[in-house]
Amino acid sequence: MRPIIIFYTWYLLGLALSVACVVCVCVWSSKWRGGFAWNGSGLQFNWHPVLMVTGLVVLYGNGAVLYRVPLTWGQNKLPWKLLHAALMLLALILSIVGLCAVFDFHNANKTPNLYSLHSWIGIAATALFAIQWVAGLAVFLLPCSPISLRILLKPVHVWMGGSILSLSIAACISGINEKLFFVLKGNTNGTLPYNALPPEAVLANSLGVLIVAFGMVVFLILSNHKWQRPDSRPEDMAYTPLLQEESE
Amino acid sequence: MRPIIIFYTWYLLGLALSVACVVCVCVWSSKWRGGFAWNGSGLQFNWHPVLMVTGLVVLYGNGAVLYRVPLTWGQNKLPWKLLHAALMLLALILSIVGLCAVFDFHNANKTPNLYSLHSWIGIAATALFAIQWVAGLAVFLLPCSPISLRILLKPVHVWMGGSILSLSIAACISGINEKLFFVLKGNTNGTLPYNALPPEAVLANSLGVLIVAFGMVVFLILSNHKWQRPDSRPEDMAYTPLLQEESE
Repeated sequence: MRPIIIFYTWYLLGLALSVACVVCVCVWSSKWRGGFAWNGSGLQFNWHPVLMVTGLVVLYGNGAVLYRVPLTWGQNKLPWKLLHAALMLLALILSIVGLCAVFDFHNANKTPNLYSLHSWIGIAATALFAIQWVAGLAVFLLPCSPISLRILLKPVHVWMGGSILSLSIAACISGINEKLFFVLKGNTNGTLPYNALPPEAVLANSLGVLIVAFGMVVFLILSNHKWQRPDSRPEDMAYTPLLQEESE
Repeated sequence: MRPIIIFYTWYLLGLALSVACVVCVCVWSSKWRGGFAWNGSGLQFNWHPVLMVTGLVVLYGNGAVLYRVPLTWGQNKLPWKLLHAALMLLALILSIVGLCAVFDFHNANKTPNLYSLHSWIGIAATALFAIQWVAGLAVFLLPCSPISLRILLKPVHVWMGGSILSLSIAACISGINEKLFFVLKGNTNGTLPYNALPPEAVLANSLGVLIVAFGMVVFLILSNHKWQRPDSRPEDMAYTPLLQEESE
């Protein structure tokens, strides 16, 4: 099979998993958890999983693989850089609104914030993401940033980008797990506990599996050097010509 | 600073984090959770975090970066391959014993197995690890395995290796989070709940942070192409010469 067909097979699988993750988390929050509001109630909390999964995982992962799409090659990189930055900014905004949803909910219910390991990992992922976005803008988009700095920081940007996605996935998995233990306690009305795997648990566990599968597809696309945008292949002199053109 | 010094700085940080993770999980299980036994009690469960963190994260991560140590370069690769396989086998055995500890504990207490998302992710990580180890042995160690197959499957082995580490970290974070909600409920004797962040919660949350930091150092070492064993750099003709020498 031609390499471009293999790439697009994986890329389309990533897009399909993106849609599946967003649909799954929306169905969980709306059908099983009662829907949405912004009034400090549990319905406000329901925005939290939807916005974190959509922003910190799905949009983030799609933004990360943008340069691998062959359609974006052989052209001026600047518009694609702007799209990468815009997708990541949207992902960051959704994540921050997702954090506001849970902080507001906790404050309205006098629940302490930031005590669980889930919250520590989630806040670390979002904080690193914010730093990464600002540093990325300053180093890779501002024309005054010197080429030597871009070459120096590109591997750090790539490594930090992958690490943030890993942290986001760990935060989502621990968050879904925690929420299911909170809400599926079982009672005398015949509601089943988490350990009896009622339909809601199967749906939310499956959401976790979809998130992990999506992350694996993103890492697969990122790890294949043949799918790197040609200007950033090591043998192409560390993308200097294009950066020179852009920084002029 | 010379590249080799930068490498060893990160490598030693990875080793220091390895020791910190193992010490931290042992202190948590022994000092705060009452120690160890193999009798179906909660003391048997205590082996579970110790063995999973030590096997599936610490030994696994150290096995993954072995080829990056410059000390192993410029020599026949076979002894280092055997050490890589041996470290990974030890990691796999510890992980499987760690799973036995929790299955036995559940069975003795009539608790269902494999219902939580934590357990789904953990069992997937261990199963993929077992498949990866057997496939690695068959493809990269058995002399009868053809060079074309090795070249074809090396990127898959590397991608799957990183994915398994990400899954392991997600499983550990969700497991520590879940355990703390189970055991730190607070009571009238003055025991503080998880949301009051008692010392045990700070210790176990810190264990989670150490695991994430260790994973990030491993990914940093793996992501730097300059630190790749020279025979596997793409410009060195996909490590064919050494594989030919080994398969003779």
